[in-house]
Amino acid sequence: MWLQREIGLAARPRGFHLVTSEVVEALPELGELRVGLCHLFLLHTSASLAVNENASADVRVDFERWFNRAVPEGAPYWTHTLEGDEDMPAHIKAALLGPSLSLPVTAGRLALGTWQGIYLCEHRDHGGARRLLATLWGER
Amino acid sequence: MWLQREIGLAARPRGFHLVTSEVVEALPELGELRVGLCHLFLLHTSASLAVNENASADVRVDFERWFNRAVPEGAPYWTHTLEGDEDMPAHIKAALLGPSLSLPVTAGRLALGTWQGIYLCEHRDHGGARRLLATLWGER
Amino acid sequence: MWLQREIGLAARPRGFHLVTSEVVEALPELGELRVGLCHLFLLHTSASLAVNENASADVRVDFERWFNRAVPEGAPYWTHTLEGDEDMPAHIKAALLGPSLSLPVTAGRLALGTWQGIYLCEHRDHGGARRLLATLWGER
Repeated sequence: MWLQREIGLAARPRGFHLVTSEVVEALPELGELRVGLCHLFLLHTSASLAVNENASADVRVDFERWFNRAVPEGAPYWTHTLEGDEDMPAHIKAALLGPSLSLPVTAGRLALGTWQGIYLCEHRDHGGARRLLATLWGER
Repeated sequence: MWLQREIGLAARPRGFHLVTSEVVEALPELGELRVGLCHLFLLHTSASLAVNENASADVRVDFERWFNRAVPEGAPYWTHTLEGDEDMPAHIKAALLGPSLSLPVTAGRLALGTWQGIYLCEHRDHGGARRLLATLWGER
Repeated sequence: MWLQREIGLAARPRGFHLVTSEVVEALPELGELRVGLCHLFLLHTSASLAVNENASADVRVDFERWFNRAVPEGAPYWTHTLEGDEDMPAHIKAALLGPSLSLPVTAGRLALGTWQGIYLCEHRDHGGARRLLATLWGER
């Protein structure tokens, strides 16, 4: 079984957002897979995907705080500055976290650990809606 | 051919650990694949997987040193601090390196480069045993 | 359909390089896939792969600048120094970005976003030619 579908993710403010439910609800065919993989690929270069803690919202606040310090806006070494102060840092953050996730599927569900959720990491101030290409394959 | 198996990794001290043999020994079915993929997914949010140098142990020491400086404990900007000083840095480190690896399989073996090995990156002081979900698929 | 092929990437200077065309031209069988995945795995520990902006060359310049500041050469905490000042930083950079990419394939083409391209990230001063193992699978 192969399935590929583009999923639109609603626009979110800059920061780290839990989107597990939004992704799973867009992929009801997950339920047909006995064993397989779910590949999620964000079609953008200034937002990213990650897997991390799904419980405390302050974890996601701290992600934003750390990344802003690690990849500072307005640093004197940036040369790509025409698209806004946060644009070049957004590209670096997106590369560090990456545009894609490969998640195992077991018995019709994403096989995530108890505390794992899917983050949409929005690195732009006004990134707008984001497009995700999901690919599912495996055995029924 | 599809195979999925949970692998328990023994508890290790905080730091970077070479686990290639431990993983390969838990997956004897690798030998049946002519060509395929091996996906490894760590079911945790404060440890991670990476591929890097399998020879000098001092490379793994330096990984720990760099990550501790890049993601400092006790920084004033952390808000998620109830689970220990190293907990929030562990989440950031885990996201930077990621919970999963996709490794090619060729002629019954992981097709790693000569100097490549699989690292378990333990970011907690007392992380305990870790659980890895392995998925293999491909052609016999 | 399964295909696996080693691709040689020409030696490049230290820095971030767009290699989308070079990779796609080495994989004409992409055209046969209706839906599938393309996995690219770099067989090295001091170079890496990433997906980011394919338009402005100054984005790639800024990647090199940021990574050089984030992972400094000659820092007093490095212990693995025998292979050159940039060797240990190269290992860290390679782990942050990772050795592999999983890219969706749709209707015979890599399904990248408009602004996405494949980067070869060369972290050594004289890394030489690099070897990439490509694996394609999916439905015709």
